[in-house]
Order: sequence, then C-alpha cells, then structure tokens
Amino acid sequence: MPSPIHAAWLPEDATTALATAVHVSGTGPLVATVSDEARAATRLHGGHLEPDPTAARLLLLTLDLARALAGEPAVARALEALDDDGPSCPERYAIARDGDRTAVVGEDDHGLLHGTFALLRHRGEEDVVVRRPAHRSRMLDHWDNMVSHPVMGTVERGYAGDSLFFADGDVRADLGRVAGYARLLASIGVNRVAVNNVNVHRAETELLGPRLADVARIADVLRRWGIRLHLSVSFASPIVLGGLSTADPLAEEVARWWTEAAGRVYAAVPDFGGFVVKADSEGQPGPFAYGRDHADGANVLARALAPHGGVVHWRAFVYDHRQDWRDRSTDRARAASDHFAPLDGRFEPDVVLQVKHGPIDFQVREPVSPVLAAVPATTVAVELQLTQEYTGQQRHVCYLGPAWSEVLTFGLAERGTRPVHELVAGGVVGVANVGTDEFWTGHPLAQANLFAFGALAWDPTADPDAVLREWAAATFGPDDEDVVDTVCAMMTDSWATYESYTAPLGVGFMVRPGHHYGPDVDGYEYTPWGTYHFADRDGIGVDRTRATGTGFTGQYPSPWRERYEDLASCPDELLLFFHHVPWTHRLHSGRTVVQHVYDTHLAGVERVEELVRQWAGLEGRVEADLFARVQERLAEQRRSAQEWCDQLCTYVWRHSGVPDEHGRPIHP
Amino acid sequence: MPSPIHAAWLPEDATTALATAVHVSGTGPLVATVSDEARAATRLHGGHLEPDPTAARLLLLTLDLARALAGEPAVARALEALDDDGPSCPERYAIARDGDRTAVVGEDDHGLLHGTFALLRHRGEEDVVVRRPAHRSRMLDHWDNMVSHPVMGTVERGYAGDSLFFADGDVRADLGRVAGYARLLASIGVNRVAVNNVNVHRAETELLGPRLADVARIADVLRRWGIRLHLSVSFASPIVLGGLSTADPLAEEVARWWTEAAGRVYAAVPDFGGFVVKADSEGQPGPFAYGRDHADGANVLARALAPHGGVVHWRAFVYDHRQDWRDRSTDRARAASDHFAPLDGRFEPDVVLQVKHGPIDFQVREPVSPVLAAVPATTVAVELQLTQEYTGQQRHVCYLGPAWSEVLTFGLAERGTRPVHELVAGGVVGVANVGTDEFWTGHPLAQANLFAFGALAWDPTADPDAVLREWAAATFGPDDEDVVDTVCAMMTDSWATYESYTAPLGVGFMVRPGHHYGPDVDGYEYTPWGTYHFADRDGIGVDRTRATGTGFTGQYPSPWRERYEDLASCPDELLLFFHHVPWTHRLHSGRTVVQHVYDTHLAGVERVEELVRQWAGLEGRVEADLFARVQERLAEQRRSAQEWCDQLCTYVWRHSGVPDEHGRPIHP
Repeated sequence: MPSPIHAAWLPEDATTALATAVHVSGTGPLVATVSDEARAATRLHGGHLEPDPTAARLLLLTLDLARALAGEPAVARALEALDDDGPSCPERYAIARDGDRTAVVGEDDHGLLHGTFALLRHRGEEDVVVRRPAHRSRMLDHWDNMVSHPVMGTVERGYAGDSLFFADGDVRADLGRVAGYARLLASIGVNRVAVNNVNVHRAETELLGPRLADVARIADVLRRWGIRLHLSVSFASPIVLGGLSTADPLAEEVARWWTEAAGRVYAAVPDFGGFVVKADSEGQPGPFAYGRDHADGANVLARALAPHGGVVHWRAFVYDHRQDWRDRSTDRARAASDHFAPLDGRFEPDVVLQVKHGPIDFQVREPVSPVLAAVPATTVAVELQLTQEYTGQQRHVCYLGPAWSEVLTFGLAERGTRPVHELVAGGVVGVANVGTDEFWTGHPLAQANLFAFGALAWDPTADPDAVLREWAAATFGPDDEDVVDTVCAMMTDSWATYESYTAPLGVGFMVRPGHHYGPDVDGYEYTPWGTYHFADRDGIGVDRTRATGTGFTGQYPSPWRERYEDLASCPDELLLFFHHVPWTHRLHSGRTVVQHVYDTHLAGVERVEELVRQWAGLEGRVEADLFARVQERLAEQRRSAQEWCDQLCTYVWRHSGVPDEHGRPIHP
Repeated sequence: MPSPIHAAWLPEDATTALATAVHVSGTGPLVATVSDEARAATRLHGGHLEPDPTAARLLLLTLDLARALAGEPAVARALEALDDDGPSCPERYAIARDGDRTAVVGEDDHGLLHGTFALLRHRGEEDVVVRRPAHRSRMLDHWDNMVSHPVMGTVERGYAGDSLFFADGDVRADLGRVAGYARLLASIGVNRVAVNNVNVHRAETELLGPRLADVARIADVLRRWGIRLHLSVSFASPIVLGGLSTADPLAEEVARWWTEAAGRVYAAVPDFGGFVVKADSEGQPGPFAYGRDHADGANVLARALAPHGGVVHWRAFVYDHRQDWRDRSTDRARAASDHFAPLDGRFEPDVVLQVKHGPIDFQVREPVSPVLAAVPATTVAVELQLTQEYTGQQRHVCYLGPAWSEVLTFGLAERGTRPVHELVAGGVVGVANVGTDEFWTGHPLAQANLFAFGALAWDPTADPDAVLREWAAATFGPDDEDVVDTVCAMMTDSWATYESYTAPLGVGFMVRPGHHYGPDVDGYEYTPWGTYHFADRDGIGVDRTRATGTGFTGQYPSPWRERYEDLASCPDELLLFFHHVPWTHRLHSGRTVVQHVYDTHLAGVERVEELVRQWAGLEGRVEADLFARVQERLAEQRRSAQEWCDQLCTYVWRHSGVPDEHGRPIHP
C-alpha cells in the first residue's frame, strides 16, 4: 500500500494560472499533455477549454500554429519575442501578455510544455519572457537495482525509499508514481532519464533483451512528459546476454551484436535516448580486458546507436580502486585526465563523455575536474550528484544549488574566461535523489535539490538563491512569506554549514567506509580506494603540486595550475586538496589549520542548533507530516554534526597537540 | 552435492588398534557405537568381533561387566588402576595391557567410548593408563543461523563454509555430516553441543516450539556419540513464541511458560542439555527491560530445566555497546564483573555463568577475566573461541592451544595459587570453528584447534605442544616423522606469530569494523563499542589503574591487581591493556614501545615468509588438495601480515615521529 505522495512544488493551487478560458493547439504528442493539464486545472479551479482561439484568455500554442494566430496581440508579442531572441532552438518558449490575454508559444511541443509550467511560476512579474535551455540534454541517472542489494537495497546510495521503477526483481506493474515523478521532472525541464544503476547486475542486463517490453512500458509513461528513457548497460552484455565468447569492442561479432541490440531497443522504444556505461570502473567490465582503450569501447556502442539518434553516455569515472596506500605517487585525482585526455578526438560524435564535477567523488568540496577542459574535441557532460551520498544522505539539510552553481560558472578554460557550462555540449547529468518515500526525497527539504538541478541545467547562470526562493514559494507559499523566508534562511547556507562541520579545507573522504555516513577520519586512510589525507603529528593534506607532489595541478590550464600550486594563492577551502601543510600553517583567513578546524566545527554545530530553532518556529504553519519529518531529520543532523565536530576536533588535537586558542574544551 | 569430507585426525589407518579379536560388552547406549567402531575397523584391517571374552585379544568393557571378568589379567590391571585412581567419576576409563591382550574399561559407557578412542592414539607407550576428565562439561557452541544472514551467512563468524545443521531456513534433511562431526567430537571428548547462534533470530526461536521434531533428529545423531544437545534461546521467547505480553522473569505466566516449554523439549529430547542465553547483550532481549537483574533472568530458566537435569548457560558477555567514546571513565573491561559480581550467591545451582576468557572479546592477547574469580558461589564456565574471529579467520595459521593453556592454568585466585581450571566447575565452552567446508575448518591446520579444545577441556594441564604433536601425528603420520616435525615447527609458535604482526602489547581491537579481518588501527576508536586505544602524538594505551584510570585493575585479586597496575611489574604483553604510556616508554624487554612495534611486526612478516617456505617443502608429501589449500591460505596470510605490519608501523611513525633504530624504511 503506497503512502500518499507529497505534491512537492506543484500543489493543487499551483495551477490556477491555467484556470481560465484556455485554448490549446499545436502539433506533437505533448500538446495532449498540455491539454490534460489545462483540463485538470479548469476542473479544479474553474474555466474551460476553449476551441475558439479568439474567445480564449490563455493561448497555449506551438510555433507553427501560432504563426496562423499572429493577429492576436498576445500571440504577436510572443512571436516577436521569439524572433528577437535569435536563432531557433528546440524546447524554447515565449510567454507574452496583452491586456487580460496571455499567450504561451513553444518553439515545439516540448517548448510549449516547458512554457506552460513556466506560466504557473510566472505570477505576472513581466509582460514578456522568452527562454531557451542552455543545454539540450538535461538528464537524471537513477542508480536503481531490479533486485534488492543486501546492503544498498533497490537504490544504490538511495535515501528516499525504494526504486520508483523496479520491485521484486521486475519492472513495477503499477507505474503511477513514475507518472507523477515525470510530471515533476517536466515542470523543471528534465528531458532524459536513465532508469537503472550504472553498476549493472545480472538482472538489469536483461533490460536490454528479454525485458524490453517492460522498458517500453516505462518509456511510454515518460514520453507523455517529454522525457527520453536511457538504460545503463554492461559492457559485457555481448557475453552475458548474447552468449558471445568476447566483448572485445574491435571484434566484428561484438559490433554486430550491439547493432542488433540497438535495433531491438528502438523497435520497442522508438525515442530511446541511449546507453549509459560505467566501464573498467570499480569492478565493472570494460575494454581494458581486451587491450582496447575507452575510445574503442565507447565507439562501438555509439555506432550502434547513431543511426537511431541515440547517444552513449560514457563515464570518465575510471581509476584504480585497488591502489596501494603506501604508494604516494599514484593519485586518484589524476586518473580521469590521464585516461581520457590522450583519447581526445578519437570519440565518435555520438559519444558523450560524462565527467563527475570534481576529480574524486562528489565530496562536499572539490576543485572542478580538469577533464572538463582537457578534451576540447570530445562532447562532454558534467555529472552532479543530487542523492546526498557524501553530503548528509538526506538526513542533513544541504541545499546544493550554490555548489552546482559554483561548478557550472567556474571559469575553467581560456585563462579563466570560459565557464564550465560553456564546455559541456553534452549537457548536465544528475544522479537522482528520489524514491518511493512519501516526500519523494526522504528529507522533504531535499526536494529543493531536485528543483535546483532542473533550474540550473536549464540555465546554469541562474542565481541559486533565487532558485531556492522560487522552490520554497512554490512548495510552501506563496501566501505565507514568513515561512518562505524562514525556509530560505535555513537553506541558503546549508551546504556551507555541512562543509563547516565535516571534512575541512577540501581534504575530503573522512566518512565511514561502505555506507559513507558520519565521520571516520582514518576510515579510508589505509585502504585501496585512493582517498587519503596523510595526517601525522606534523601536518595534513595531499601534495598534488608538480614540484613536490603528484603533479595533479599540472592537469589544469593556467591560471589554475599556478594558482592552486602556490600556497600564496591557493584558496583556503581547497588547501588540503592541493597541499600537505603543518597543523600550524596559517590560512588566508588568518587562522591556523588547527584553529580553523576547531572554529568551523564548533560554529557548524551551533548553526545546526539554530536550524532546529528556526524550524520549530514553523510548527502549525506547514503541514504536520512534513513538519514532523523535517524535525526528526534535524534532530539526527544535530546529533551527527556534534559527532563530526567532536571526532574532528579530537583527531586534530591528538595529532597536533595544539589547544584551542579560545580555551574551549576538546575531548582528549 | 557436498564435497568429500576430510578425515581429520581419524584417517582409516587410525583404527588399526581395533583390528583384532575384539570383545565388546557393557551397558548403556554407547556400547553399540563402540561395537560399530570395532566392526568397521575389523572389516577394514582384519580381525573380528569375539563373543567369548576369554578368546579375545582386546576387551572393551564397561565397569559393571568388567568386574565379572576380573579373572582376565588385563582386565584385572585395568580395574586395579581405576581403584587406585581414587573416587569414581563418570566418563573415566582405564587401558591396561597384559602380554598380547588389552583391556579398555570405562567407568560407564561414555568412559568406554572415550577409552576406545584413546586406545587408537595410545600406540603402546605405557602398559596402564587411567584418565578422568577434569570437567564434566566440555561443550561447543555453534553460532549457526537457520536463515542465511546477508553479511554473516549461515554461521556467524564462521570461516568454514555453511552450517552443518541448518540450510534454507530449516534443519538439514541429511544429517550425514553431523554424524561424522559427532564422531570427531566423541574422539576428543566433547560431550555437549549447542547447535544454534547465541544471537537468536526469528527462525531459531521456533526450534523451541514448532521445530522440536527437527531438533530431536539432530539430538538422535549426537546421542549415538555421547553428546547432549543444547539450544540457544531468546529471552523473549515467551512473547515471540508464546504470545505472552511480557517476558518478565518474575511474572508467574512467564515462569509457567518456560516450565511448559522445558517439558515439551524433554518430551522430544529426553537427554536435552539445556539452554544457552545471551541476554541484554548487543541488542538481544533480557531481564533489564523489566527492571530485573540477571539472577532473576537466569533462575526462571534454570527452575524450568532443573527437574529434567538440564542447565542454563547464561553468558556474562553483558556490556554497553552504545558507549560514548568521549567518556573515558566507562570501561567495557569492567562490565562483566560490575554486572555479575554483585549477583554471586543468587543463582540457582543449575545456572552456569559462561564467561569469556578475557574481559573484552577473544582478542589475540587479553588478561584473564577477573569474573572467573569474582563469583565463588556461582557455577562458572570459561568460554574460548575456536572460530578465529580475531585471530586470522582461518586464513592465518594460528594454533590456539598455547593461548588456552595459558588461560586455563593461570593462577587467578588465592594469591595466584589457584588456576582457572579449578575455578570453572561449569566446565569449558568453545565457540566452534567448523562447517560444511571439505576440511571442516576452512584452513586444514585449524583442525588442530578443534582437537586441542577437546584435549584441554579434558585435561587443562596438558602440554599444548604435546597435544599439537599428537594431532599432527594422527593427521599426517605417524609414518612420516619429518612431515609431523615440520607441521609442528610451523604451528607451535603460530599464535605468538599472529600476535607479533597484529595489535601490539595487549592493546586489542585494531581490526576492520564489522567483519573484523585485517588492520584498521583507528577503526573502532570513535565508535560506540567500547574498544579504544587512545593513541595520540604522545602515547597509546588504556589506563585501567585504580589511581588514575578506570579502576579495572581493582577487580583482580592480589597479587594481580598490584602487579598489573604497577608499570614495574606489568607484563610487557599486557602493557597497553592496562596503561597509557609514552611512545618512548621502555619495556622490560629493553625496547621502547615504538621499537617493539617495528621489531615485532617486521619479524612477524619474516616468520610468515618462513612458514611459506616450510610448507613448500612438504609438496608431494601431504595430500595434494590439502597441500594446495594450505598453500593458498599461507599466501593470503603473507599478504595480510605485510598489510598489518605496514599499517601498524606507519601509524606509529605518523603519531610518534620516532624512526626505527635500525634505520629500516617505514612507509610515511
């Protein structure tokens, strides 16, 4: 018996803007969805569907039909705005008002769908808006398993219940929740979804074969909301599924197998998006087994998909996860560039190299991955993580909009002038944070991360604070400004707060091995995973400079390589990512490393206590279930923040022997 | 399809001593088993069963019938030996020779069974032997689960395949392996077996109720070998199984429920041994939930069993597993005495308090638990661990005979004059190390631990080196003295070797949390488990003295309390268990703590390399499967020992900054 589902940022009264005399027309399958939305809104709030465009107060049109209605002033203004906006672009839309009439004109039916949801949020601030997505591909990857993993469950690194797509080793019979989820995604502009885990277990390989009919059922649901379905596939599929003796990408029978497999998929799912592949990574099979490189590997799949309009998302997350901790010259941070920069220019056009935003693995603070600028002849996508694997696992409030904004607007290339969002022609990919949880995301406030992902994937230059406020107003308001203000005040710096009481100064990975929740400062220090901090009685941090360290800084273009490797210019927040320094090293902030740890961690706990108080003030002003859920999570965040603080302070004290300058007690 | 089972120390040619004209007679059900053994031996090696005692060359008799045959000189000598040995004692036996005739006389049928197996090992060294068990109860506890645990499998902390007793949520249909196992146990004198895990999950609670018929099937197999079956039971059984609303031990309906449950068990298993209970420990239910103490809890079960001759093994392993690492006054080592010493005198006579040999948890080195001397009015059993949870998990060679011998002969009471084996009227309990593995114990050489357990439970004063040689000769020889010599040379100091490259100087618990294999020096340092070493830049160890520490030393009688708490007299090997000392503290050995770590760890790895070479020399001289298995395990031991060595040395170097005196390189 599924629990009732929270409406997130689309509560019933969000659709009042559609509750008038609405005329919908256009071409393409999504026009029907827009009509359904309008019909539902009019039933709920009044108004009707109006066949006569001249009698309508609201016109929802695709561009081709709008041209015929250019006599309507609102339509004319929308068309003018589109013309002024420059070259045409799929999914673009304009909203224009003239007196009491409004027109939403989509460049195509996708544009009309986005424009319709934009209208709901528009609230009449401007007379004319025109918007185009910065990236054609705005994709969410689900790490969902068909068969429940004994530790991970049905969603690897999932903190929001079970998989929306799978249950009991099969695709769910009832995909009702998927439909609701797809509507949420459509409302924020997400247009691609990979439904299964990049770690492809035995059962999921069958999605590409005997279970294609079930895949098609999911695709049918997503299609109504303008979303293309992708599958994660095993590189060993020709063996596992096809019964071949090899998966060598240069073997002719392997190429043939992939071509036939693609043909079967497109026969079942004509708008199939493509394959996602994690190869030669953390135990997954890949081309290395055959002495081939990753261009060979990706290209054979791309050639199979290209005739159908599909792409391969090939993950750059390739590193040695059986590293020897004793070997201080090997550096996991270098691995992606070392593997992929030499392959630049060798990938087929339909390969998208999918690069995690940082060189390690979604830590609370990492520098931007240099790979994003290292393969200019390759189509690149940047991968963000909505599911809070390393940022509190949806038990801690951590609004990641500011973190993603920093990544997307970071001037990585051309001497710092060219931001990441201009480098990623392959778009933005996020690892999803949803499941069967009644609030979708476990922590109700983590819905903001899903919302912000959509907003920033569409417009990476958007102000994350404005996005946060838009989400909060849609979810909690807009009538109670005070609630919206409080929620925004709690969340705006919540990423910085999480950083303040966890791993300091960019050092990363001080989490408990395995489940990655809570502190264990040395937990990964002597493991094969390549994530070390090298703390001793004298200091801490990883020397990644060219002169004395692993040389990782050399993978950055200027000015970053010089800026990162010079202690005088390396930003405090990344100090320990790039340098091994004495405990008493003085930061640009004026504090020593030791004092920074003491100050930030103690302050972080105080800030969480303040969050608890802020939320308590909203009792009775937000719905009771949601209030209780957030309150319960905040209590855990409070406990966990204290634990992080105490372990970090004690660890630093035990190693450095330097007391707090302000004489506060540190547990010995 | 089970793999073929290794014969362990009872290969076919071990029974030649029974291959003659054998006369078997006596009373009691085990006489039939002895006859079967003799019959099988004569079929294999020649000879026959001889109805006429005067015509027999070997007489196997119980005492009552031997009296009637006192005219036979061998029998007369055996009877004389028994008379000279002092008061009668169940399970006692004598073996006597006169010319070419031999008599084995058992005080009872159990004694006859033991004497018969002793004869196999006797090899004619002496003309007359008489032996009695030091303890009436010599018991093995299996931590076996009916339903496979996602992490632990069907045997918690098992490293030897699956459960012998259970499969697929049920008692095995085919108990053939149990019969073979019971024969091995009978041959070493084990006379009680608890078949299921002390952590009682839902399925196993049913052993006490709906599944009693299956329990009876196991008991039937064990009974033929003189072994009584025990069950681990949940303290919450009256609720879980009986549907009562409480398990309060003072509630009348609870007492009635246990009485009725015991009645049902004995109806199915007339010689049922009793219950094993882990209560209020690591999440298991117990009397604390009802505001009752452990005497209340144990007594209600004992009263139910006593009329039938059963006992309760009540584990003393009670401590706070949700301890706050910041609280340095709480000491897990104290917990068992703190809980149980005040209850001395309050337990029913049929309660056996089952005490782990050390105060923590089967570490490679611990002091003897003071509880063993703290409850003189209580029947106590000492619990040893055959399964090598913390001593290499049957991937490392670790012969535990010397460790157990040290415990059993340790003069804990009466100013050091009264050894542990005189304190444990409740006998010796071991946690079993066997499973469906073809060699029974995963590591073939770990069979020695099973053998030594039996030998030392029977005679705690036995020399563990002599026991080892007896096992090796029975298993590998006796014809190839060189193989026996090599195996003994490899194993005699293998416990010391394991200690040398793992956690030093009694500090304990530097293993990976969860699975407990391999090093993680800080793995438990900031956890709730109460197992800390408090290392910092200045020193390491736990101050358990009365003056400045947790006061645990005060739980020991003199002279131990004074000896342990004075640095001048505390043995090196327990130094860090009792004291926090500077890294440069000088041991009685003359070395500093730092230098001790470097020296012992580097030497330990070298010793393992020597083991590899020693074993390699036996290729072709022991059976090929066994050779290969040991070789594979030694390779892993070699790898793991190096890992332990390197992590420990680096950890100590990073904290102390003190280099090796001999200039050997330490990984920074």
